[in-house]
Amino acid sequence: MTITITAFERSPDGGKGLARDMRVRWALEEVGQPYEVRLISFANMKGPDHLAIHPFGQIPTYEEGSLVLFETGSIVLYLAEQHAGLLPRDSNARMRAITWMFAALNTIEPTILELTTAKILEGDKPWTEERLPLVKDRIRARLDKLSAHLGVSDWLDGAFSVGDLLMVSVLLRLRMSGILDEYQNLAAYVARGEARPAYIRAFAAQFAINAQDRTQV
Amino acid sequence: MTITITAFERSPDGGKGLARDMRVRWALEEVGQPYEVRLISFANMKGPDHLAIHPFGQIPTYEEGSLVLFETGSIVLYLAEQHAGLLPRDSNARMRAITWMFAALNTIEPTILELTTAKILEGDKPWTEERLPLVKDRIRARLDKLSAHLGVSDWLDGAFSVGDLLMVSVLLRLRMSGILDEYQNLAAYVARGEARPAYIRAFAAQFAINAQDRTQV
Repeated sequence: MTITITAFERSPDGGKGLARDMRVRWALEEVGQPYEVRLISFANMKGPDHLAIHPFGQIPTYEEGSLVLFETGSIVLYLAEQHAGLLPRDSNARMRAITWMFAALNTIEPTILELTTAKILEGDKPWTEERLPLVKDRIRARLDKLSAHLGVSDWLDGAFSVGDLLMVSVLLRLRMSGILDEYQNLAAYVARGEARPAYIRAFAAQFAINAQDRTQV
Repeated sequence: MTITITAFERSPDGGKGLARDMRVRWALEEVGQPYEVRLISFANMKGPDHLAIHPFGQIPTYEEGSLVLFETGSIVLYLAEQHAGLLPRDSNARMRAITWMFAALNTIEPTILELTTAKILEGDKPWTEERLPLVKDRIRARLDKLSAHLGVSDWLDGAFSVGDLLMVSVLLRLRMSGILDEYQNLAAYVARGEARPAYIRAFAAQFAINAQDRTQV
């Protein structure tokens, strides 16, 4: 059955791999599943056809036969459950890997989203310069703990898992801010994720679309 | 095997049911599992014993024999997988319910956390009065879509599921702001959640601790 995901026709990040389809592409590459991509314009993302499969009018979505999903967390969990390679077989270790998925999306990412919001949506506000250090310190409060947990390990809990896939993806959003480089072990952790062949293939696939787009402009 | 969760010795919300142990208590009541509670002080939450089971030094945690979990999303997913009542049997419907869990925690809750942060951590800042309307409008942008999806349905996708449990829990954080009441169907949806016998039992259990605490002060 063909797998089809959606992605931005023109990614706001210009192909840096920060759009959320990257997380799904990476998971698909890790489990060795081919997929097709349907590109969506910003206008069509808010149209009735797309809202019917994604109630919040965002990307990515996942379609496979009669199964239609949104939310990257759900999509990568589904892929990890269906195919070998992203979840341990031991039931306790499996739940711990899933715990790290939620930690990435609900404990770490919200603090990082605040920084993105502050820069992109409130970048022109008079308070932003004074407020940014507070936002960054709240990120550091979480990364202090994450860094202490990771220590000298390669991955968060044993072998690479879907928890690492999401945590690396979330931390990548910090690179431009310089905060990631304040944590040597976290920066190395992210680099290990980026060095995985599956990540490299997924990154190239999303970059090709945006590179193509730039030559058309 | 005994299930033990952790909760605040003294909840910052004074028993309003907004602390995250409430989500786990509710799930445990929905699936009919008895549990014990270990109360933790703020000082001990950041100590080595608790950090060993919760790397971010928060509550709740979940212990059952050799299984030790943190992250409410992961804990309630585990309970929903182990016991009947919170996930549909049909495999596609099951994944859609899980999708709503992630939507609650990664699409809706981050915008609501920004409001909590603005009020509690930045309440004394000179920019907060002017900034709050922007934060609230970002919440409304998400609730517009959520409300449109829910329409006149009782629950987000068929029967009550773990996705509704988390979405109601997340939306409850908005009650004090008045924003929830701008959406009649979402306010009714939350009220339906609160009216469930399992919710009522879970609420009473967490309230008893905090009421007891108040008589001691």
